[in-house]
Formats: sequence, C-alpha cells, structure tokens
Amino acid sequence: AVVDNGVDFANYFCTYAFLYHQKEMLSDRVRMDCYYNAIFKNKHHFLGKTVLDVGTGSGILAIWSAQAGARKVYAVEATKMYEHARELVKANNLEHVVDVIGGSMEDVTLPEKVDVIISEWMGYFLLRESMFDSVIYARDRWLKPTGVMYPSHARMWVAPVRSRLVDQKMNDYEGAMDDWFSFVNETKTYYGVDMSVLTKPFTEEQRKYYLQTSQWNNLHPEQVIGTAAIVKEIDCLTATVSDVLDVRANVSSSIVEENTRLCGFGGWFDVHFRGRDEDQTKHEIELSTAPSADYGTHWGQQVFLFYPPVRASKGDKLNVSFAMDRSKENHRLLEVEFGCEITQSSGGLPPPMKKKFYIE
Amino acid sequence: AVVDNGVDFANYFCTYAFLYHQKEMLSDRVRMDCYYNAIFKNKHHFLGKTVLDVGTGSGILAIWSAQAGARKVYAVEATKMYEHARELVKANNLEHVVDVIGGSMEDVTLPEKVDVIISEWMGYFLLRESMFDSVIYARDRWLKPTGVMYPSHARMWVAPVRSRLVDQKMNDYEGAMDDWFSFVNETKTYYGVDMSVLTKPFTEEQRKYYLQTSQWNNLHPEQVIGTAAIVKEIDCLTATVSDVLDVRANVSSSIVEENTRLCGFGGWFDVHFRGRDEDQTKHEIELSTAPSADYGTHWGQQVFLFYPPVRASKGDKLNVSFAMDRSKENHRLLEVEFGCEITQSSGGLPPPMKKKFYIE
Ligand SMILES: Nc1ncnc2c1ncn2[C@@H]1O[C@H](CSCC[C@H](N)C(=O)O)[C@@H](O)[C@H]1O
Ligand SMILES: Nc1ncnc2c1ncn2[C@@H]1O[C@H](CSCC[C@H](N)C(=O)O)[C@@H](O)[C@H]1O
Repeated sequence: AVVDNGVDFANYFCTYAFLYHQKEMLSDRVRMDCYYNAIFKNKHHFLGKTVLDVGTGSGILAIWSAQAGARKVYAVEATKMYEHARELVKANNLEHVVDVIGGSMEDVTLPEKVDVIISEWMGYFLLRESMFDSVIYARDRWLKPTGVMYPSHARMWVAPVRSRLVDQKMNDYEGAMDDWFSFVNETKTYYGVDMSVLTKPFTEEQRKYYLQTSQWNNLHPEQVIGTAAIVKEIDCLTATVSDVLDVRANVSSSIVEENTRLCGFGGWFDVHFRGRDEDQTKHEIELSTAPSADYGTHWGQQVFLFYPPVRASKGDKLNVSFAMDRSKENHRLLEVEFGCEITQSSGGLPPPMKKKFYIE
Repeated sequence: AVVDNGVDFANYFCTYAFLYHQKEMLSDRVRMDCYYNAIFKNKHHFLGKTVLDVGTGSGILAIWSAQAGARKVYAVEATKMYEHARELVKANNLEHVVDVIGGSMEDVTLPEKVDVIISEWMGYFLLRESMFDSVIYARDRWLKPTGVMYPSHARMWVAPVRSRLVDQKMNDYEGAMDDWFSFVNETKTYYGVDMSVLTKPFTEEQRKYYLQTSQWNNLHPEQVIGTAAIVKEIDCLTATVSDVLDVRANVSSSIVEENTRLCGFGGWFDVHFRGRDEDQTKHEIELSTAPSADYGTHWGQQVFLFYPPVRASKGDKLNVSFAMDRSKENHRLLEVEFGCEITQSSGGLPPPMKKKFYIE
C-alpha cells in the first residue's frame, strides 16, 4: 500500500511534534523505568557499541544509551521534534556521541551498521500506529547480523472484562438517537424537509462511534473476570511486516468470578528485553501494560464492549476468535473482530456473539 | 499556494463527511431560519431559475431552492456526504430538479451557467476554512452576468470584551508550567537527564496553546464593553481571492461601561441577502452571529484575550489595529494581530498593547 507522506504527517506525525505529547510519554513512570532499567542493567550491550534509536522523539533513549557507554548513537526522528532532541543532547554534553538525524527512518542513510536498535514503537494495543514497520525496516537495513533489538519480544493479550462503560456508552448512544428523532421531527415541521431517510446511515454512524469503537481505559485487575490469553507473539529480531499486517487467533478463557457480567474484552500488550539467544540481557526486563491496581501506563487497555452484556459465572468457558487487520482508509488504525462462544458450567449454551470494532 | 488534496481531506473535509456534523449545522436555528427566509421570502429569485449550491452537505439549501420553484439545482459536495444528499433529494421527490454532484467545486463541470449561487461557506470569524475561495471560483466560472449571490454581502466585526476566560486560561497555563517544572526535576532526579533546556520551547508551545489561541465562546451582550467596529466588508458578487487573503483595518471603539476590565476583543460576522443592485431581494435577510442574549449560533464568537487584562471605564477611547492572514502551514487556518492604544477619559495613556493570535 502506497502511503502519501503529507497525509501521514497530517494524520499521524503531527501530535509527536508537540513537546506536550512527548512529555506525556516521558511522564509515564512504568514506561520510563522499564527502558531505563533495560539499558542501565544491561550496560554490556551498550558499552563501546553503536546504537540506532528509531523515532527518538525528545531523544531520551538515545541519551540513556550514550550515558550507558555507547560509542555512537544515531537518533532518527521524522518530526521537527528532532530539533529539540538535538538541543537536549547538547545540553547533556553528549553531542560527540549522539547524532540526531531529522527524517523518516525509511529515508535516512547511516554511515555504518549498528549493534543495537532501540525503539519505543508501541501504540495502543501494541500495533496501532503501525510504527513497528519502520523498526523492521531499520533492522533489515541497519542492524549487524549479530545485533540485538531493544525490546526483543512483544505479546498481545485479551481477557474477558466487566465495565460500566458498557452502560454509559449505551446511554450516550440512546441519547444521540433520541436527539436525532426530535431533529427529524423539527426539520419536517419547521423547514418542510423529511430527513427520515437519513435515519439508517445516521444510526450506523452513531453505532460505530459509540458502540463499535474500542475504548481507552485503565482497567482495575478486578474488572478482569476470566483468564487472559495471548493472541500474538512477536520476535522483534525476525518478525516481518507481513507477520504483523494481521493477527488471527482462537483462544479460550475461563471465567473466574461468581455471578458476574461479561461486558466484553480487554486488550493489552507487554514487551520484553531479552537480547538475542547468543547474546542475552543480564537482567531481563518486562514492560507490561496489563490492568494493574497501582501502576497505570499511558497506553491503558483497549476495551471492546458487547451489547447487551451477558451473565457469566465461575467455570464458564469462553471460546474466543480474534481477528485484527489494518483499516483500509488509514494504515495506522486497526479493525478487530471478536467472536465468542460461551459454554456455561451449568451446561447452558447462550447464542454465540460476533462483533466488529474499530481502534481509532 | 499549491494545496495537496489528500492533506486537505485529512485536515479539513473529514469532519463534513459525518452526518453528526451536518446535523449540528442543521440544528442551528438562527442559521436555518435565515437561509429559509432568504429563499422563501424571495421566491422570485428562484422560480424557474437555475441554481448552484456550493458545498451542499446534506443538500438542505438545494432542496429548499427546488421547493421554492427552481427549474434546476446543481448541488456540489466534495465529501462522501453527497451520497446522503442524493438520497435526501430522492426521498423528498426532487430528483428531477436537484442534480447532486460529488466532487470539488474546482473540479466539476456543469452543463450550463446559473442564475443563483447559494452557499453556506462561512467559518469561524467568517473566513476560517477559506471556503469562500471556492465560492469565488464557482461565481467566476458558472454565474451568469446577471446572476445573484446568496448571501450577497458579508462583514467582520470586532469589539472590546470582558470575560472570565482570561483568568481560566491563565490558570491553565500556569498549571501546565508548574507541572513542567516538577517534570524537569523528576527527570533529573530519577533518570539523570537535564531537560531544562526545553523549558523555553515548552513555554512557547504552551503560551501559544493557552494564551495565543483564540477561544470559541458564546458571549453575552453585556460582556461587550465598548462599541463594535467593522474590520471588513465583502461584496460577494465582486470580491476576489486576493481581497480575502488578508484583512487590515484601523478602527476605534469607545468603552461604554463604568469601571470594567478590558480582557481582549471579540470577533464575529454577519451576512446579508440583498440580491444585486438591479435585481434586489424583496425582503432583505440578515444572518448575524453577534453576541446575543437569546439566540446563539454554532459559530459563537472568537475571543482574543490580552494578558493581563487592563482596567477601563466609560469614555475611554481605543485605537485598534487589526491584521489577519492565513496560516502558512494550513491555508484554512488564520493568524491575527491585534494592536490597541487606550486613551483614558481621565487623560491617562497606558502602554500600548500588541498581540499575535492563532485561530485553530
Ligand atoms: N518512520 C519513522 N521515522 C522517524 N521517526 C518516526 C517514524 N515513525 C515514528 N517516528 C517517531 O517515533 C516517535 C515514537 S514515540 C517515542 C519517542 C521516544 N523514543 C521516547 O521513548 O520517548 C515519535 O516521535 C514519532 O514521530
Ligand atoms: N471546494 C468545495 N467543493 C465542494 N464542496 C465543498 C468545497 N468546500 C467545502 N465544501 C463542502 O461545503 C460544505 C459546507 S457546510 C454547509 C452544508 C450545507 N450547505 C448546509 O448549509 O447545511 C461541507 O459539506 C463541505 O464538505
């Protein structure tokens, strides 16, 4: 698929050009601690080595890599943020180590291949933004055959959840539709035009917006009512773009709560820093965005809600089919289809559910 | 300036493709009543005539034109909304009169010239969105020499205002900066990186966002503390694109309230439906977006705030310089510079103010 660069900048890169947005990521302590520890507890991977930071943003990972002893760090950033990264590198006296390069990863040329590629490329539910494509591109072109990836592995998880969002969104949707019907009446009465033919497309538009768009949420672990399952595992050293173009999985889950409401599914990811088989990290670090009582991340979880929610209870088995594809209109957005069959511990078999969602 | 169509769609047209957004405009009773009356109180301009609706959206103005007796109406719409417009036309049994044409005004070909061009092209503070360019284009190419424009005239107004928004935005800004300084401290303490070099660009970014971006507001007439002045008059029949590329004016205003706060300026517009000199409307209609106690419009007013506000009182004279240009980054957005000299009725001469604003 050919991507228009101007459109990609208008739709995607624009937010990253704001320090405000970079600061949000830099204020995510879970994220920061993991990358910090991944680097400083594994200095042997950086000492005297060459490093490429794909999408350096403010320059933070490049600076840490240099502080951990890298000989040379190439820090590539597509937006104007690279100017700030360059300032930051200088203010921290690392301009002799870190080369900040303004441009798309796909367009820049480095003077040498590198020992380490570090990048914080993860979007909502891991793959939103499709930035991993650029990391794969960088790896295939610039990583030495012996090089390591930071992070080295990634996983996507789903689990059944309960959430009052299901009621709230349904209320919002019903409110919008009530509004619509008054509007149709008034337009007919006052302005002599019958808009009722638009009720169907308006309903579809509003259903998509309120009921079929996944919701950002920081779930509490207690809202996870069944066992979580992995729907995708990625080895960052070997994965290809076609491996991440779509995701298909059939998984099962058991409800672990008595008498509860199955409102839908939560989706999240984790990544690991393990180095490569022949050259492992000394301390394996995990960055998890799973529901947590104490430590939320800016990624939160994506919540996919079913209407209406169904009763579920301990021991019920879920057979879940999961399919994720890129949106045809915007390759950085995602579409997900969840199917779910329930086998109740009581022996009951409610009708199977199937639903399409948009990750916007 | 060459405009990339894909980028323009990503930045501008996208919202108009939603029925939700069309409905917002269709629910603006002030707007609707004015266009409705302009058409139905001036049926002589439509009866048996050919009409072009530039940017028909849902199709409402085209349908009214047909209901008022037009022989043929060409309804041009750039977004996918044209499909809904076509359905609506059909459902109202006007498909023999209204031809809905999907495409940009600049790209479509009509089978004939028209007697009337109708369009609702006005953005915030009249010229935001720069859609009037497309109306000019349509007029020069498709309006008969004897044709009329609906609306026929437009004016931009400014007036001194008081508003608590000035305190709120200053608070927001100060909160954001407090946050920044804690962030800089924490990043130094926990992560060994000194971010203080970014304080200056971050401050600029936040000042622009909180203090230099004009605010949408529905002002109460009592918040207007001085006489309003016209900064631009447009004759839709003769105006050229270069006439609206920038706006320059020096105007004066008198404060009419005792002991008040001058917090900045409000900006709004009105348009009139007068036909043309040789072929006038029978009932002149005015659509005003001025501050009103009873009837707000979805345009509201744009508020341009000065920090800090200054004391002002009855009889103080303001000498106001106004300059508006299109944003270099996005030709549909605007940049405004306000200058203000105050001559107090007490004889005092506070220091003159000058400030740059962005209409986003
Ligand atoms: N193909 C590409 N080439 C260069 N930069 C890219 C890119 N795709 C995304 N980016 C940049 O990658 C960054 C991802 S956000 C992470 C920023 C920084 N590494 C940190 O950890 O804080 C954004 O600034 C984005 O503009
Ligand atoms: N150059 C152009 N060609 C075609 N349509 C355009 C255009 N510029 C803007 N538009 C469309 O013009 C509409 C303006 S909003 C007004 C919609 C409708 N006439 C009404 O009064 O309710 C939008 O739907 C927008 O997509």
